[in-house]
Amino acid sequence: MEKVYDLIVLGGGPAGYLAGERAGHAGLKSLVIEKRALGGVCLNEGCVPSKALLNSAKIFDYCNGHGEAYGVTAQNAKIDQKKVIARKNKVVATLVGGIGMQMSKNKVDVEMGFGEILGKDENGFKLKVNDKEFVGKKLLIATGSEAVLPPIPGLKEAYERGFGLTNREVLDLEEIPKDFVVIGGGVIGLEMASYFNSVGSKVTVIEMLDHIAGNTDAEIGKILQKNYEKKGVTFKLSCKVTKIGDDYVEYEENGKLNKVHADKVLFSIGRRPVTKGFGLEKLCPEMDRAAIKTDDHGRTNISGLYAAGDVNGVLMLAHTAYRESEVIINNLSGKKDIMRYNAIPSVIYTNPEVASVGYTEADAKKAGFNVEVKKVSMMFSGRYVAENEGGDGICKVVLDKDTNRVIGVQMIGNYSSEIIYGAAMMIETELKVDDIKELVFPHPSVSEIIREALFS
Amino acid sequence: MEKVYDLIVLGGGPAGYLAGERAGHAGLKSLVIEKRALGGVCLNEGCVPSKALLNSAKIFDYCNGHGEAYGVTAQNAKIDQKKVIARKNKVVATLVGGIGMQMSKNKVDVEMGFGEILGKDENGFKLKVNDKEFVGKKLLIATGSEAVLPPIPGLKEAYERGFGLTNREVLDLEEIPKDFVVIGGGVIGLEMASYFNSVGSKVTVIEMLDHIAGNTDAEIGKILQKNYEKKGVTFKLSCKVTKIGDDYVEYEENGKLNKVHADKVLFSIGRRPVTKGFGLEKLCPEMDRAAIKTDDHGRTNISGLYAAGDVNGVLMLAHTAYRESEVIINNLSGKKDIMRYNAIPSVIYTNPEVASVGYTEADAKKAGFNVEVKKVSMMFSGRYVAENEGGDGICKVVLDKDTNRVIGVQMIGNYSSEIIYGAAMMIETELKVDDIKELVFPHPSVSEIIREALFS
Repeated sequence: MEKVYDLIVLGGGPAGYLAGERAGHAGLKSLVIEKRALGGVCLNEGCVPSKALLNSAKIFDYCNGHGEAYGVTAQNAKIDQKKVIARKNKVVATLVGGIGMQMSKNKVDVEMGFGEILGKDENGFKLKVNDKEFVGKKLLIATGSEAVLPPIPGLKEAYERGFGLTNREVLDLEEIPKDFVVIGGGVIGLEMASYFNSVGSKVTVIEMLDHIAGNTDAEIGKILQKNYEKKGVTFKLSCKVTKIGDDYVEYEENGKLNKVHADKVLFSIGRRPVTKGFGLEKLCPEMDRAAIKTDDHGRTNISGLYAAGDVNGVLMLAHTAYRESEVIINNLSGKKDIMRYNAIPSVIYTNPEVASVGYTEADAKKAGFNVEVKKVSMMFSGRYVAENEGGDGICKVVLDKDTNRVIGVQMIGNYSSEIIYGAAMMIETELKVDDIKELVFPHPSVSEIIREALFS
Repeated sequence: MEKVYDLIVLGGGPAGYLAGERAGHAGLKSLVIEKRALGGVCLNEGCVPSKALLNSAKIFDYCNGHGEAYGVTAQNAKIDQKKVIARKNKVVATLVGGIGMQMSKNKVDVEMGFGEILGKDENGFKLKVNDKEFVGKKLLIATGSEAVLPPIPGLKEAYERGFGLTNREVLDLEEIPKDFVVIGGGVIGLEMASYFNSVGSKVTVIEMLDHIAGNTDAEIGKILQKNYEKKGVTFKLSCKVTKIGDDYVEYEENGKLNKVHADKVLFSIGRRPVTKGFGLEKLCPEMDRAAIKTDDHGRTNISGLYAAGDVNGVLMLAHTAYRESEVIINNLSGKKDIMRYNAIPSVIYTNPEVASVGYTEADAKKAGFNVEVKKVSMMFSGRYVAENEGGDGICKVVLDKDTNRVIGVQMIGNYSSEIIYGAAMMIETELKVDDIKELVFPHPSVSEIIREALFS
């Protein structure tokens, strides 16, 4: 006899484990199926472990000369890459353990193993894991995404022999490559370029577009690039990789083929929803290109079938996944809720950090807003000046003049990662500029820069 | 002929220069009088320069062994106190210069010199600076505060011969004292204890109360104390200083007199509004103990006379001063505004940082709220775990169950200083808990801990 659940969640990453947690808390009998490790890519081989590495790199930078501007010197600074990786593994283990505890606490069953959809009948969705069968009245697909490995000559072979890496392998690299080539100048590529630049690799970033950092405000992307060029990173923009060789990457630049030597290559070219190989075709939900199509309740076109997180292809951010799952569980447990994507922050954890939320100036103009941009140098923040020798950070606040509201904030400069949620709050709660001006920000803090921008 | 202004501001600290800036921007003809340096105590000898020192200390800590937990080692770490002070002076000069530019940009006259009130007649308030006379239709007193030097035997003499220091002198100390005694375990005392502990002093903090950190949540104060005890700071609580000797401080502990050796002593016993010596008695405004009494528009009981910042004795925080001045200028320039004190954050920039806003649990209960406290370990934040080996931070969210609103947030753990403004926003905008739960916080960030607390 198979066990019947109110909800089965396929995938134990941010969308999946949070759905389980909230569903359990709401009294729904729930099962989370995970093939690899609770926490998914984000926790095990993505956002969290990369932060552990980047934190070590920042400390190493200080010991390795950057402290001098602040009156601090040291000799013979060393970073022990094996220790960094071991500590990262400990951090991950702690957090994965924490999720396990949340699952127990909320009485969520967890089945570790590869889950396969067998079909749907009048009882619900039938799944098989480890030769056991389970039925869920509802099914949430939270299978996440995987690194895209495009059909570039030599790429597949390079990946197989360990010369080429994805986000997964790069976080376990126990030796620091001398020449490190990053293909793709998006968030993952830039964070890893930042890390290996700090710890001593010669880093080259090859990007097909004419700018790094994807949809980040163009001016801020350029400031970030300038910072890393100063630190010795080479950027090859508008360049297309044509071949992965034995110990090099070949790329086309202005119609000519060039080569760059590499000891390791990171493929951070993009991510693709995981929708194949687990029987989804038996349910045949409507797709939106490679992703499962969902509405603002996380519903697919199949009754009782939901999708959340990267697999829906919308934003591919862990915190978006959390919220998408919450919306689904809230509605399942009788509480009306709706998914909105207008106030979701995003961060690049480089040094300096970049954080954004809402419309950039360019996007707001395209969308037809009556745009005003308030831009200030971070040097207007006393704390920023105190802590960032030679810093060139800026903060841009995008306003809709018709409603006198904030519709976007973009920042480059440290602590932006921890400040941006407040900007998201301003957008989400539709605060008027005059109301924000009445808020009191602690002095001295970098967060004050948002207020400073509004008064500029 | 004396020059006539719409507004004269006596004092160029946070309350004063910001009043000038906003008044100038609103088209009021304004004069700011400052006897020492624009920026006042906060910028020149308080919150900002201390942040420069603490930043250097944090970097030194990493080089000096703290990096090891993160895989980073270095030898022979040194902090050059003279360089730290020189850099601090540069930071201050940059920011003071910035204020000067804001004054020019907003067409505010600045008179450097000691301003004296001569009296009030039908034209307004008459003041004298550098043998010039000025008349202001309105007068804003923003004379700030000064360190209290209580009549403890030997204290005055110790101060005069440079053995005893206030916040002013301690920030210019070019040699690191071997034994550093701090009298007063409030914000200034703790920040300086933190600095000198990092850079090698043996630090003793003597506090009359049975706890450090003033009105900070008691549990958080204890965590902070524990952290510094681990780092080697000695706390003498419930101890009363009875004498400042030649090279020691004498104090009473449980009825017995003890001595502690000192190379330097910091008097961080409290601050007192500056209301004497500049002719205020000629206007004779109503006082509230040592402070000028003001209403929620910053008005005194004398028509046309205002006070803002530390001199009103309310909160003595630079960011409170800013807002108080804004309220005054808004009302003067025809825009209704009112001062509220319920959502003003405060920060202790120790390592770990402490940040608070609104009611603590204890205060909320005393005030009669139907209190619920949501408390979580910072270890629920992935970023906190990644960056804080052995961290014991917590976040407490104080809720009013009757309205389902946040009325206080207290945190200990790094980045709290940059996160707390968002909590202030939650209180100020009276967001419901259910609305906050719908906000999306970036993952991984320490800021998520507020959300985590609400869901706990």
